[in-house]
Amino acid sequence: MSASFPPLSEAQARDAADPLRGWRERFVIPDGVIYLDGNSLGALPRATADLMRDCTERQWGEGLIRSWNDADWIGAPRRIGDKIAQLIRAAPGEVIACDSVTVNLYKLMMALLASRRETGGQARTILTESGNFPTDLHVAAGVAQQFGMTLDAVSRDAIAERIGPDTALIVLTHVHYKTGERFDIASVQALADAHNVPLIWDLSHSIGAVPLDMGADAARFAVGCGYKYLNGGPGAPGFVYVAAEALEFLGSPIQGWMGHAAPFAMTDGYTPAPGIERFLAGTPPMLSLLALEGGVDLMLEADGPALWNKSQALFDFLAQQMAARCPQLAPITPERADQRGSHASFVHPHAWPINRALIEARVIGDFRTPDVLRLGLTPLYLGFADVWTAVDRLAAIMADGRWQRSEYSAASKVT
Amino acid sequence: MSASFPPLSEAQARDAADPLRGWRERFVIPDGVIYLDGNSLGALPRATADLMRDCTERQWGEGLIRSWNDADWIGAPRRIGDKIAQLIRAAPGEVIACDSVTVNLYKLMMALLASRRETGGQARTILTESGNFPTDLHVAAGVAQQFGMTLDAVSRDAIAERIGPDTALIVLTHVHYKTGERFDIASVQALADAHNVPLIWDLSHSIGAVPLDMGADAARFAVGCGYKYLNGGPGAPGFVYVAAEALEFLGSPIQGWMGHAAPFAMTDGYTPAPGIERFLAGTPPMLSLLALEGGVDLMLEADGPALWNKSQALFDFLAQQMAARCPQLAPITPERADQRGSHASFVHPHAWPINRALIEARVIGDFRTPDVLRLGLTPLYLGFADVWTAVDRLAAIMADGRWQRSEYSAASKVT
Repeated sequence: MSASFPPLSEAQARDAADPLRGWRERFVIPDGVIYLDGNSLGALPRATADLMRDCTERQWGEGLIRSWNDADWIGAPRRIGDKIAQLIRAAPGEVIACDSVTVNLYKLMMALLASRRETGGQARTILTESGNFPTDLHVAAGVAQQFGMTLDAVSRDAIAERIGPDTALIVLTHVHYKTGERFDIASVQALADAHNVPLIWDLSHSIGAVPLDMGADAARFAVGCGYKYLNGGPGAPGFVYVAAEALEFLGSPIQGWMGHAAPFAMTDGYTPAPGIERFLAGTPPMLSLLALEGGVDLMLEADGPALWNKSQALFDFLAQQMAARCPQLAPITPERADQRGSHASFVHPHAWPINRALIEARVIGDFRTPDVLRLGLTPLYLGFADVWTAVDRLAAIMADGRWQRSEYSAASKVT
Repeated sequence: MSASFPPLSEAQARDAADPLRGWRERFVIPDGVIYLDGNSLGALPRATADLMRDCTERQWGEGLIRSWNDADWIGAPRRIGDKIAQLIRAAPGEVIACDSVTVNLYKLMMALLASRRETGGQARTILTESGNFPTDLHVAAGVAQQFGMTLDAVSRDAIAERIGPDTALIVLTHVHYKTGERFDIASVQALADAHNVPLIWDLSHSIGAVPLDMGADAARFAVGCGYKYLNGGPGAPGFVYVAAEALEFLGSPIQGWMGHAAPFAMTDGYTPAPGIERFLAGTPPMLSLLALEGGVDLMLEADGPALWNKSQALFDFLAQQMAARCPQLAPITPERADQRGSHASFVHPHAWPINRALIEARVIGDFRTPDVLRLGLTPLYLGFADVWTAVDRLAAIMADGRWQRSEYSAASKVT
């Protein structure tokens, strides 16, 4: 071995001393699997399995249409939004759970640009980061086209200097999906505010992972994802955050009945709901939405600072192990905790087959094109021995070269 | 009694002779409840209860991120879309299951108007029916505003003469949510085509209820709902239909990663998928989407013409009973089968408390403002004795006047 690394016994000792250890039992983790992809799809909370039976068999099956009232389905987007608000330190009534991140980002971008146009804004550029998550870039390009604007996607380092009189809107992802790099919300927000440019934060890889405080950081607009660290289930609805002070100036471009001030008055004319509900569109996908609530409830019950502390400890432990045992994979995620999220990424020219071989060895991380192996650290259900074993199996794959077998090079639709 | 009506024994005899009778056992219907609101939220198929356990506990819980491939989550929107295509007689690749009706209608309207603008269209009016379902009106109003157009909502009788050189787009709901009136798709479509105006059909109250044939009727654009007659679960995703010939000219305004030609290539630039997948936006709410598939699978297994025959028989039986036993409630749904959907509506100035009292008597229909009692006829899980008993209970409520008790006048959020 090229460098020293802690033995498994040390990892086990740290797990034994971990105050969050009990949380693991509240998730379904398949036997023998080490799951390092909770940043892509969070694990199933055991309580959510029961919840889904209840939602399906009792609420839908027995309650039928009555459950819109009796089970308060109608209140779910706002109720869950208010819970998410606690996680990002927003106020009640500033967050609504609905639609996908993509649709939510679209609604918010369109609303902000329409509002600026009404007030005579002449700026013609939407600013974002090159290499941002694809849906953010694609949505922004589509919105730019609709407003006859230009999408300016520049490298992270160039963003600050690029904000200027021609900037109509900024869209940034707080924690980068691939590298794990994290923006400092407060300072970038202050810069945007100094130029009087609205700034939307995509919190998809942040919420449930790193400390967030919309209020303290003066962030006014955000969207985020329900199926990653919130453990809300595959394709769980996302959320929209709009600070109360900004809400009245914004209207959704998708004027749906659920965003109406009185949906069941069934009037021909459209009057937006006075609150954050105006960002609702159609009838919410209730089973998926209620599964999200199960995940959010768990996250609210957990001790946020303790989670972030453990995330940092897991990251450091992983980094140390990887440097010692898998030096062929180069780390690209910032070492400093305040500059990153809760996943760690490594570059290798053959990351694709390496990841396939790792999955075969029952360590599930993921690949991000062209050359990144991404390992998510979810302190609720992951321990130090898991990390130790994951690296041990990866080291074996690198040592015996099995990733070079043709079966691991085959294409796959998704990783 | 004011007129003769068939006795319960006749209803029971018809049920005994009903070739569809066995289907009822494949749904969860709460004991003692007569459910006449399957046109608002379809009942739970028993198989879907099992499916949801599998989707939650095995696909998500055990499969985790691997289920995007192993359970073909990634293919679900198209797979389910192809199944829905069979129900509306469209071709494979012309339908995609995704988002809500509201979002889908928005995407399709925006796509069609953007396409017309590119080809220099000068027409400035979007035409629809006054009293159309609210979300259709609201979405259309929002889209009209974005294109600097006027929304012209006129009565059903005035639509044909209103189509003209200034008409940029027509949006019609095939079966009216309140009255049950049905447009003849072929003839209205021919009229729109004669004026070269694109026409979007909202099939929300049609699919799974009345015969549909997009191909024969030359309809090229439609959206529809998954949670009514398709029994897809509360807030189930909807669908978009675009005839293959028209697809290449249309792009979604919401350029999401799932609508990209190669989502996992994760490129900065947006290239729409070559097929109907271009109308996908974000990650689909998988639990809700798979519940929809359960309902669609049942509907595919059922004999469509037999369903429509039974719907007509149930309607006639209901109409006869209502005329004889509840003459205070005036029917507003067309008697002719080819002019209506599969629900029957009745007007009474006190329809609200009457409906509340009826629900208390375990007959679940619904109220639509200001004065409509709406009764949905779902031949898969409803029989003649159900209809007989429902009218019997309603007649008792009208006879003893219990609907006048204050408890039934209280407001409720949803009916």
